[in-house]
Amino acid sequence: MKAHIITIGDEILIGQTLNTNAAYIGERLTDLQIKISGSSVVPDSEEIIMKEFNKALSSNDVVLVTGGLGPTHDDVTRKCVVEFFETELVENEEVLDDVKRFFEARGRILTDTNRGQALVPKNATPIRNSRGTAPGYWIEKRKKVFVCMPGVPYEMKNMMESFVLPKLEEKLHKKTVIMIKNLITTGIPESMLFDKLGNMEELLQGAKMAFLPSQFGVKMRITVEEATEEKAQNKLDEIEQKIRTFVGRFVFGKNDDTLEGVVAKLMIDRGLKLAIAESCTGGLISNRLTNISGSSEFFERGVVAYSNAAKVELLKVSEDSIQKYGAVSLEIARQMAEGVKATTGCDLGLAVTGIMGPSGAVPNKPIGLVYIGLCDEKICTAKEFRFGDDRLLNKDRTSQAALEMLRRNLLGIPYDD
Amino acid sequence: MKAHIITIGDEILIGQTLNTNAAYIGERLTDLQIKISGSSVVPDSEEIIMKEFNKALSSNDVVLVTGGLGPTHDDVTRKCVVEFFETELVENEEVLDDVKRFFEARGRILTDTNRGQALVPKNATPIRNSRGTAPGYWIEKRKKVFVCMPGVPYEMKNMMESFVLPKLEEKLHKKTVIMIKNLITTGIPESMLFDKLGNMEELLQGAKMAFLPSQFGVKMRITVEEATEEKAQNKLDEIEQKIRTFVGRFVFGKNDDTLEGVVAKLMIDRGLKLAIAESCTGGLISNRLTNISGSSEFFERGVVAYSNAAKVELLKVSEDSIQKYGAVSLEIARQMAEGVKATTGCDLGLAVTGIMGPSGAVPNKPIGLVYIGLCDEKICTAKEFRFGDDRLLNKDRTSQAALEMLRRNLLGIPYDD
Repeated sequence: MKAHIITIGDEILIGQTLNTNAAYIGERLTDLQIKISGSSVVPDSEEIIMKEFNKALSSNDVVLVTGGLGPTHDDVTRKCVVEFFETELVENEEVLDDVKRFFEARGRILTDTNRGQALVPKNATPIRNSRGTAPGYWIEKRKKVFVCMPGVPYEMKNMMESFVLPKLEEKLHKKTVIMIKNLITTGIPESMLFDKLGNMEELLQGAKMAFLPSQFGVKMRITVEEATEEKAQNKLDEIEQKIRTFVGRFVFGKNDDTLEGVVAKLMIDRGLKLAIAESCTGGLISNRLTNISGSSEFFERGVVAYSNAAKVELLKVSEDSIQKYGAVSLEIARQMAEGVKATTGCDLGLAVTGIMGPSGAVPNKPIGLVYIGLCDEKICTAKEFRFGDDRLLNKDRTSQAALEMLRRNLLGIPYDD
Repeated sequence: MKAHIITIGDEILIGQTLNTNAAYIGERLTDLQIKISGSSVVPDSEEIIMKEFNKALSSNDVVLVTGGLGPTHDDVTRKCVVEFFETELVENEEVLDDVKRFFEARGRILTDTNRGQALVPKNATPIRNSRGTAPGYWIEKRKKVFVCMPGVPYEMKNMMESFVLPKLEEKLHKKTVIMIKNLITTGIPESMLFDKLGNMEELLQGAKMAFLPSQFGVKMRITVEEATEEKAQNKLDEIEQKIRTFVGRFVFGKNDDTLEGVVAKLMIDRGLKLAIAESCTGGLISNRLTNISGSSEFFERGVVAYSNAAKVELLKVSEDSIQKYGAVSLEIARQMAEGVKATTGCDLGLAVTGIMGPSGAVPNKPIGLVYIGLCDEKICTAKEFRFGDDRLLNKDRTSQAALEMLRRNLLGIPYDD
């Protein structure tokens, strides 16, 4: 089974917009084990679009097109579809109802241009759009599948998840069910993760796994294919359980989870309050936690103590200790965590201090050296980390390590390798 | 003049990596007014790559290829180039010297695989790689140009800037010089910017301008094409000056400038110290400023005062005022800015409070309502803003507006429309 992805739009060609649609579609088709033979971007030109339709359909089983379905004169995809399949436009009642409802809900008046969006190629099954007005098209011809979707990522993704992917699965894998699960880890490098998992064939029993690393950690993407949904689910559960016995403490979430989201949920569930003292991350940890809606339930305050004065005044760090150990030290990380907890009366205090680069290195304290302190009701600990030499990556890594220390504390998982 | 971009690599097709290379090349070719007829992504398959080379070269003047030039077995581009142009590999001394130097500088030993990177197709001019080991190729055949570059963005961009773009310019625009300048604005919507610029034809005198909006502001991209470099520079300067007379106070920088970078430079140049009090942005403003290397020179501390207690304790905000006006109010923004300045002894105090959504709205205080306070040595002011209903976009917009208020204060530009 081979697929080709076509993205229509000048804005992609001239580099004004990144082609995230093709990446998303590529990922989801790969999940279904559909091979992607190629991907192309074409301008808003009827002639070129028609040629590309022809080329793509001639050597593939599935062609997915995004873009050019809006109501403006730039959007030529529908016209090309009608010509290419030698069909005509007919008004579709369901789609017209959708468009009407969309405008009513927003208190806007339906114009003729908008009404025109309900005109659908006669040979197409419309793909309804719950997030916009332009419907997509599902067209089958000589056992091949041709799909058109709007270019707006949020509309396209909804059509993919709710209609296109289930239908493709049904079409292409009549006898099997494919299921995917991502397990997201942090605090362990890819190679060590791999080693700890032991014999991969034994672990996976025919399932597939990809390791996707970033500065935030490594995502493990597991794909199973079985005869029934139940069997697929069981196999996925079985593999997940095995993985968790080997590396469970590094797995903080699944699929689209973020570490800040996981930590926020734990804090809220337990009714605990958190205060943060950041030096080298400059507010990034607080920023990440407050990206989560509802964070005010547990996040009491943050202090970005960039200067030594701020550390002494706001966090009650001892000036003598700064003199003795340096601001970037295990002792100061611990005192910062203790200070931010004590001065706020929160249940937990989290603190970071380090050297992010490119400047700031001193003898025995290289760029990338970081200390993270954490205090709860019972104990205060601090831990040393050594990251790289890129300032922004170091900020990301430090914030991730700090949130992970907090997560493990909340779950009682020890933080040592 | 028509160009086609080919990106080679399975990792792009399956959506593991976003195709930022094609976007960058598209943007830079557009700068040179080269029309991009299409862009394609192909897998690491010799057969498909050869077909794509053939198709692209047959209908374009320029073909740019990235990816598949590394030393591993996956990287098949060089082999395809040799076959496609019916040529052979020869060792290039200059490239070999580059590769040797690259390994020496890193204290690593040159293997045969690495040495093999100096083998270059006989018909190609090698494009030297100062950031990696794989050279690029510049090949001319029947007045057409074929360019291969590595897929690593940082290596490819360097080759584009230092070799490919100047050579294309020379090749394709023998009689004219093209120059581009981006002027970056914030605090003014695209439509108002457009209105304030008046008659565009009169302003541009044949030059071109694109408006590129985002949540951070609108970038104006000006492209001039003139007979000589001097004339192009003069015209660009003239247009910039005219634009600045109309909308100068909204222009905070040019080309790759960031607002946090511009503000940091102003603060450091003037030897001023800053303290920040953030409520709704949760540390984002501090985080952006501390992304700038050297920010410890001016950034004394930040306080993320999420709770009312934090506002009262750390910022000396009056509890009565919170009762009377609410935490999201002009008065509290002003008091937060005043408090963070007074308690730290800094020259400037900046503060934000607002409702980012999706929850938190109260009667007369909708989601997107934001107050920003700023105090300098002379006065304390606060200003109301109304943004949208997306939490993360609201955080971005609020941080941008706060930094812009600070920039205007430092430059003595009034903040009112």
